[in-house]
Amino acid sequence: MKLQLFEKQVYTDRRQALKQNIGSDGLILLLGNEDSSMNYKDNCYPFRQDSTFLYYFGLDVQNLAAVIDTDTGEEVIFGNELSIDDIIWTGTLPTVMEMASAVGVSQTKPYNQVLHYVHKALIAGRKVHILPPYRPENTMKLATWFNVSLQDVQDHVSVKLIKAVIAQRVIKTPLEIAEMEKAVSISVDMQLAVIKSTRPGIKEYELVAKAIEVAQAANGQLGYPAIITTKGQTLHTHYYGNTLQDGDMVLSDIGAENNMHYGGDLTRTFPVGGSFTTRQKELYEVVLASMDHAISMLKPGVRYKDIHLAACEKLVEGLTQVNLMKGDPAEAVAAGAHTMFFQCGLGHMLGMDTHDMENLGEPYVGYTDTLKKDTVFGLKSLRLGRELEAGYVLTVEPGIYIIPELIDRWNAEKKYADFINYDVLQTYRDFGGIRIEDNFLITDTGSHLLGKYLPKTLKDIEGLRG
Amino acid sequence: MKLQLFEKQVYTDRRQALKQNIGSDGLILLLGNEDSSMNYKDNCYPFRQDSTFLYYFGLDVQNLAAVIDTDTGEEVIFGNELSIDDIIWTGTLPTVMEMASAVGVSQTKPYNQVLHYVHKALIAGRKVHILPPYRPENTMKLATWFNVSLQDVQDHVSVKLIKAVIAQRVIKTPLEIAEMEKAVSISVDMQLAVIKSTRPGIKEYELVAKAIEVAQAANGQLGYPAIITTKGQTLHTHYYGNTLQDGDMVLSDIGAENNMHYGGDLTRTFPVGGSFTTRQKELYEVVLASMDHAISMLKPGVRYKDIHLAACEKLVEGLTQVNLMKGDPAEAVAAGAHTMFFQCGLGHMLGMDTHDMENLGEPYVGYTDTLKKDTVFGLKSLRLGRELEAGYVLTVEPGIYIIPELIDRWNAEKKYADFINYDVLQTYRDFGGIRIEDNFLITDTGSHLLGKYLPKTLKDIEGLRG
Repeated sequence: MKLQLFEKQVYTDRRQALKQNIGSDGLILLLGNEDSSMNYKDNCYPFRQDSTFLYYFGLDVQNLAAVIDTDTGEEVIFGNELSIDDIIWTGTLPTVMEMASAVGVSQTKPYNQVLHYVHKALIAGRKVHILPPYRPENTMKLATWFNVSLQDVQDHVSVKLIKAVIAQRVIKTPLEIAEMEKAVSISVDMQLAVIKSTRPGIKEYELVAKAIEVAQAANGQLGYPAIITTKGQTLHTHYYGNTLQDGDMVLSDIGAENNMHYGGDLTRTFPVGGSFTTRQKELYEVVLASMDHAISMLKPGVRYKDIHLAACEKLVEGLTQVNLMKGDPAEAVAAGAHTMFFQCGLGHMLGMDTHDMENLGEPYVGYTDTLKKDTVFGLKSLRLGRELEAGYVLTVEPGIYIIPELIDRWNAEKKYADFINYDVLQTYRDFGGIRIEDNFLITDTGSHLLGKYLPKTLKDIEGLRG
Repeated sequence: MKLQLFEKQVYTDRRQALKQNIGSDGLILLLGNEDSSMNYKDNCYPFRQDSTFLYYFGLDVQNLAAVIDTDTGEEVIFGNELSIDDIIWTGTLPTVMEMASAVGVSQTKPYNQVLHYVHKALIAGRKVHILPPYRPENTMKLATWFNVSLQDVQDHVSVKLIKAVIAQRVIKTPLEIAEMEKAVSISVDMQLAVIKSTRPGIKEYELVAKAIEVAQAANGQLGYPAIITTKGQTLHTHYYGNTLQDGDMVLSDIGAENNMHYGGDLTRTFPVGGSFTTRQKELYEVVLASMDHAISMLKPGVRYKDIHLAACEKLVEGLTQVNLMKGDPAEAVAAGAHTMFFQCGLGHMLGMDTHDMENLGEPYVGYTDTLKKDTVFGLKSLRLGRELEAGYVLTVEPGIYIIPELIDRWNAEKKYADFINYDVLQTYRDFGGIRIEDNFLITDTGSHLLGKYLPKTLKDIEGLRG
């Protein structure tokens, strides 16, 4: 197999910057991922390397770890060479030393030497900086190396390292933006294939098949499980067994991860039949107006939380026009009444991870020491609140979701009854959901739409279905 | 979402049989699977339920466990009900009690009550039978519940339970066979799509895309990572970056898992261009003759190890005819010389797992207390050796793999020099590999090919490419 890497200098520069950010302060230990077993040990899911490991070491190979000594500058990649049995079964690979050289690391050790490095540092009273593990096998390894219980591994996570990694990864370089343009364009092709394949009588999983095919045929894969559903009110459903019926809409939230593991994340909502119904058109326009307003606000120095709230207000204005809401839109949003229709956040960071770096902690990725995440319903699901900077890549994805369970619950409580016309809303119980989502790079002066243009106006969407 | 289940009685009968097999002997604890994180905690691979849990409880839902008390007959499913947040995010599900009722279980408890059940049983000195975990999070849970180290969890695995589960799952019922026919037929459609899409200049991953699309469009998925490669000599490669070139062959080893999680596992080898070369034809015929011979031997009472060895002898006869081997074929096989060309086993059990029940242990699935697995190169990779019984479903998959690294190593050692013509073999260094694989049910009198017929003769294969 061939390694897919950027130039060596990219990785050495990134590690150099990380060392400067951390200063002379012990070891940085970064773990690559292993294969994950599906239904028995040797039947594994497609391998996905850890994104931070990819960022600093580039090697898309199982069972590696790396140490950066911020005091001595020493860098070591840990991994085991293949046996003849490995070669027979899974083919040749570059040696660990060849792989390390390709990313500018001169020293390699067998994997079990990680333990030795960690112990030596800990005994010497030096810090060992780690990131929060999200794979249980990595938690188990860290517990062993740090000689602590599984529960106590999290106590060893380094906020300093988290902040340093985020500071680098959050600003996308031109090299990364070029990859993201590709990934989003593949995602556009996926959406076009899905939209054009839509017709009454087929199953949702047949559309999922189209999305996966396009991603795979571009040497990519799905960056996250597809959401392709006629029950668009369910924000993250992965059930694909419904039959498409004329009159329904399909909500398709899909994204490719390209061969360099950068991703796109696009949503379109479109009619199963050739055209939207009047009610569908009305609410689609409400969502689209909210989206366009949000996009117009994208630029450095603006808090994304404020864009979210402005987008919510636009939604409420539209919902008021169709008589689903009432009262003053700004007051409604301040009260949280819009969360009957829009329960989640306007968007999130995007990069190698769909919710970029989410595992490093939303308080650090999407918020700051001074701007903390809100805990109320709605805002607690806003993953990104902080002031935007040039180089951020993010999603804008407003939506309207009519959730019968929520209607029943809040109607019974008369919650937000000053702002919500429950009698009208009851007639929308089976409406479903609409989301529209594109991906943007924050530029010095505003924003740039990533990837090829994917139609989003009512007319253009209906045109694709024609 | 809708649960996909057999009739309730199927599951109660299976559990009843298990209880009878185990006798009055403590608790049986069966764990379902959780979601597995991909690149951050909440971005998960497609959920795959544990096959044994599916077999006895049918519920294709995350975060469940079950206890069967073999002394009292009590059966409990452990799981937590959805919160309103869960419903908003991932949609409604039947309640745990509704799910339990659907599979004939009358008692449910919150998930954390597993701990209580295990502790109570252990304190009372009762046995708690568990199967070997293959997901690290389940190992972690078991370590906590049994209050032992992660390493010591395996000491608590119950061989009695393993044997009882295998005894049931290894004999496929008509209901299961019907599912396997469907799964193999989907796999046939996948192969046909791949073969017909093959042409010089495209990439292997474009063929993988076709395979996945067909599986997904049939409401299935890949049962195991696709092997679609022009480097057929690598038995389990998952690298898809090579460009197809005229003169090469593609080896395609793919299988669907259908919506009930039964699987197919088929291999075909076919030319990138319209036709095989003379050398490719010669070795293809050798593999096919070996396969046909093996199929002719399939019937109850015959040891699969003997069929494997007979197939090896057929391979050697053919390899002798094309001057790659020499000497007496039976002696060559007895010495192990055929393993230069055929390093692995003739086949394996097939069911809900591609290597069916592999995680319960090959010594129990493929062998018996009296027939132990061999440890020599070649036979150590034969997953199935035991005497066949009606109701077994298995693969037959002979092959010829020309592995340059193995040629160089053994040639240097003059290994098997009495049987291998190394000078001729050197001219085949870049030949690649050929495998042909179909799936069979063992019947009372012989065998039955599962699924639709997929062409396997040279002429028919070339016909598909025409």
